Amino acid sequence: RRRRVHEVLFFNELGEICYKEHQSQGTQSAPKTFECKNKHCSLRQLEKITMLIDEAQYSIDICIYTFTCTDLFLAINRALDRGVSIRMISDHEMAYSSKSKVLKLANLGVPLRGPFTTKSMMHHKFCVIDGVARVQEIMGLKKCKWPRPYESVLISGSVNWTYNGFVGNFENCTITSDEILACQFQEEFNRMWKAFLVK
Amino acid sequence: RRRRVHEVLFFNELGEICYKEHQSQGTQSAPKTFECKNKHCSLRQLEKITMLIDEAQYSIDICIYTFTCTDLFLAINRALDRGVSIRMISDHEMAYSSKSKVLKLANLGVPLRGPFTTKSMMHHKFCVIDGVARVQEIMGLKKCKWPRPYESVLISGSVNWTYNGFVGNFENCTITSDEILACQFQEEFNRMWKAFLVK
Ligand SMILES: [Zn+2]
Ligand SMILES: [Zn+2]
Repeated sequence: RRRRVHEVLFFNELGEICYKEHQSQGTQSAPKTFECKNKHCSLRQLEKITMLIDEAQYSIDICIYTFTCTDLFLAINRALDRGVSIRMISDHEMAYSSKSKVLKLANLGVPLRGPFTTKSMMHHKFCVIDGVARVQEIMGLKKCKWPRPYESVLISGSVNWTYNGFVGNFENCTITSDEILACQFQEEFNRMWKAFLVK
Repeated sequence: RRRRVHEVLFFNELGEICYKEHQSQGTQSAPKTFECKNKHCSLRQLEKITMLIDEAQYSIDICIYTFTCTDLFLAINRALDRGVSIRMISDHEMAYSSKSKVLKLANLGVPLRGPFTTKSMMHHKFCVIDGVARVQEIMGLKKCKWPRPYESVLISGSVNWTYNGFVGNFENCTITSDEILACQFQEEFNRMWKAFLVK
């Protein structure tokens, strides 16, 4: 079966060279308005992730160590407004850090879980969109048998969802609709989600 | 084309429950001697990575933020002894940290490069084994036209090559011979390798 998306986004020292031009073309808070020719452009890489979130139909399961990036926070908000089921797993310590979007999303009603021990870090940086097992679960809850056509997407790499991660560090982020990888990540998310349930 | 390996290794709270048994079956320093039935066993997950390094034929390109894990250090040493070409890219700060294996490998002759600025973190955690572009480069240098059959493997995820990463944290590590992913990581490694050359 064809994979809709299957590529690695890299963030490196060449990702920022077009940044001033982005700012001059847009506004400081929304600097993304021209077709950038920099093939390493960090803003365009980030935009690819935003677009995948914007295309989510049923579910977004986010498991992330640090999440401070405003662009992705806004995309998750738009998904919430569309009625997409969103769940979050995060690190206790990082969830409470000052710029974290994790508690903000929890306040908007996104269920949040994490490991009970603070000894081990929740170091994942992944997100599964429309994972098969999760969509089937949602279909079951809604007593709906036939979902609209959808395709699972996995977003996973070294990069946290932070400004420094996307613009500043050397990082990678694989975006793929490979079924095996998306399934395995969805399965581990589901396992953790059950394991972290407060009884 | 068939992919030899294509799976995600997860490290979680269930990975350690068999650890004492491993120690009692082996020695403290080499605790891996029985067929473990724990499907989340961290030691077996780590062993899968070790085996991929042990099967490297031509090249290993490592790009890693922190590397302190002794098992993987020993596997890289064995690869060096087999004549495998090894290169490392690491973070300046972390390379000099006390338990880091990065400078140890540099002292054994493994070429090491990193970004010139300390402003941005080298946050990658990946390794490409027998990447096509690198094998072809090595073949060119050796004036050898026909390499033995080989298959590229990518190792990449949230996990650093540290004890805490493999046994303690919640982490993922994708191991795959997917050609597209392995190629893209090899290409970014080669790009960085040139960019970080001290002139
Ligand atoms: Zn740009
Ligand atoms: Zn075990």
